[in-house]
Amino acid sequence: MRRIKLVIAYDGTNFHGWQYQPDARTVEGELNAALTGFLKTTIQVIGASRTDAGVHACGNVAVFDTESTVPGDRFGFAVNRNLPEDMKIVSSEEVAPDFHPRYDSHHKTYEYHMITGEIFPTDRLYAWYVWEELDVDKMNEAAAYLVGKHDFSSFRAAGCVAKDSIRTIFDANVRRDGRQVIISVTGDGFLYNMVRIIAGTLRNVGAGRIAPEKMKDIIEAADRKEAGPTAPPQGLFLKEIVY
Amino acid sequence: MRRIKLVIAYDGTNFHGWQYQPDARTVEGELNAALTGFLKTTIQVIGASRTDAGVHACGNVAVFDTESTVPGDRFGFAVNRNLPEDMKIVSSEEVAPDFHPRYDSHHKTYEYHMITGEIFPTDRLYAWYVWEELDVDKMNEAAAYLVGKHDFSSFRAAGCVAKDSIRTIFDANVRRDGRQVIISVTGDGFLYNMVRIIAGTLRNVGAGRIAPEKMKDIIEAADRKEAGPTAPPQGLFLKEIVY
Repeated sequence: MRRIKLVIAYDGTNFHGWQYQPDARTVEGELNAALTGFLKTTIQVIGASRTDAGVHACGNVAVFDTESTVPGDRFGFAVNRNLPEDMKIVSSEEVAPDFHPRYDSHHKTYEYHMITGEIFPTDRLYAWYVWEELDVDKMNEAAAYLVGKHDFSSFRAAGCVAKDSIRTIFDANVRRDGRQVIISVTGDGFLYNMVRIIAGTLRNVGAGRIAPEKMKDIIEAADRKEAGPTAPPQGLFLKEIVY
Repeated sequence: MRRIKLVIAYDGTNFHGWQYQPDARTVEGELNAALTGFLKTTIQVIGASRTDAGVHACGNVAVFDTESTVPGDRFGFAVNRNLPEDMKIVSSEEVAPDFHPRYDSHHKTYEYHMITGEIFPTDRLYAWYVWEELDVDKMNEAAAYLVGKHDFSSFRAAGCVAKDSIRTIFDANVRRDGRQVIISVTGDGFLYNMVRIIAGTLRNVGAGRIAPEKMKDIIEAADRKEAGPTAPPQGLFLKEIVY
């Protein structure tokens, strides 16, 4: 048995998230169906990150096991034609049989995209419209407090089933790109809705409603009520998972 | 009777173009329906530019006549809630009763967006994927030949009903923005599919298949067969119409 690792990109708009559901269109469901169709045997992938409905990915990861002799790097070429246009296999490779996409990852990077100023309908699927002016320097100052090993309970949604809430953030920064303000966060793992709550909190900093140094108190409080609102899904992109 | 001018933005993905069709979803049809619903009397707008299916707009223009006393600048506020999320009124104002959105325009600007390198599903609705490396300097050199008053028959699709094919281009340039290559063309008017044929031709220049100075010969030939292919609609944005 060989284990194949896939890097998967998708537009989350028309998916009910990653995780398989019998009666809803999901990324995992479409991927299983396309691989099953190609390999003529039932395939069930194991995914790295169960992104929510509306969340996008440039580099989610999944693995599956197969007796097929197709070269490890050819699965994108072979299977993309069976996939709908809103998802694709970016790359593929054979990995060790005990490689696990969730437990073996070293770090992940998410981006959260906001649009300020005028918004056009062509922006609506891939960014959060924010009507205030945003001070990117202050957002960066606040984001810096996230870096390090912390209890991120303040940035943990109610439905989170993780056993503990300690995570290490390696990098967190905010940049402007035209009308967009882009938050980038890299860490060893993320709690449920963590990046979206960080984005909602950094918006409040950028809009001047809370001071950048308040971020430190919000983290230390370990209380979801201290952080800002959960930003909507369409601004979130899972950029990369590094092993 | 008052004449109201609307600046309209839309995501062309799920429209069968601008022009009203009884059995298809169009921008004009949705706009007429929303205005008719709001003003409780049948409204038929006159549009400036009948964009094709899949083409986007940040600033198309339409006018309509009404006895309503709603202030000219309030129609966006009033009507956007009745419009679907893939279109919006960006601004509105009262204009002279003889103002015509098509005949009175001084110039229009279109942009054409290409993506090079890796493409993700989140790019597919708003750009043309081009697999070659593109030389933006050469594309700019070729685009410069478009500027001026020319017979643009080489860049005119078969279905074009315009009486003459002379147009004046005021500016044409190409820039890189990350993975995107953006062509911007400003002129007093455009023939049917003109910008998309320009984009298809400039791609050939950027990819090294034709020399930049060949653009001059292509224009002078006044023959559609001399120019490149028609680029697909989803990369095209009607940016602005100036009066």
